[in-house]
Amino acid sequence: MITGVDHIAIAVENLEDAVKLYEKVLGIKPEQITPFDPQKVKVAIFKVGETKIELISPLSPESAVTKFLQKRGEGLHHIAFKVDKIEEALNTLKREGIRLVDEQPRLGVEGAKVAFLHPKSLKNVLIELCQK
Amino acid sequence: MITGVDHIAIAVENLEDAVKLYEKVLGIKPEQITPFDPQKVKVAIFKVGETKIELISPLSPESAVTKFLQKRGEGLHHIAFKVDKIEEALNTLKREGIRLVDEQPRLGVEGAKVAFLHPKSLKNVLIELCQK
Repeated sequence: MITGVDHIAIAVENLEDAVKLYEKVLGIKPEQITPFDPQKVKVAIFKVGETKIELISPLSPESAVTKFLQKRGEGLHHIAFKVDKIEEALNTLKREGIRLVDEQPRLGVEGAKVAFLHPKSLKNVLIELCQK
Repeated sequence: MITGVDHIAIAVENLEDAVKLYEKVLGIKPEQITPFDPQKVKVAIFKVGETKIELISPLSPESAVTKFLQKRGEGLHHIAFKVDKIEEALNTLKREGIRLVDEQPRLGVEGAKVAFLHPKSLKNVLIELCQK
């Protein structure tokens, strides 16, 4: 069902500043820096082996990332797992008693089908499922 | 220099409880559940594609994970990146102005050479480098 880690997302206040820092840490440039309007965020994507590191910063006060930054400050935001069949995965998890943020998948960055699981069910970890 | 994501660690209060939950989420059993005395923690390791998810819980009030749980509660704890030459990587990062927790690598779980970078330098993300 879950086949790997698609990406790890880090919430930051200032994307340009964070990109410069993570270029030093990772020793590479981001593959892409792009706004993602449905979430009202801007994302910088670094490819690290099979996984990506995504730096995300809000583009609007209504973004969920703005709320996260106000509440918890900058830091690790979520993990996204690759799945084969996202609808099937969501049904299975729901049956197992895991609380879903998204009952149905929606469109993610890079045209993926994505859905979030609720951190309250998962030891405060926000988890995204991601089918490409 | 950095070749991939070795693991993502999640700090939890009760390891057995968290293992049962993440067995459901990931659809697999942990490869290993083991105490790791130098850090005074117990670790459950799930293999997910090229990466591992590690659940960690403290075995002593002096563990750094106890302090983390008291301050921030359960949740994402650190990311570990695979590196080829850890001493070289630490020297490079230090020159770039990144604050190190460990100036020299020490012994990690599974016999790796590991070193932590300071979250204050990294947008509040605790990063581990890991050479196997």
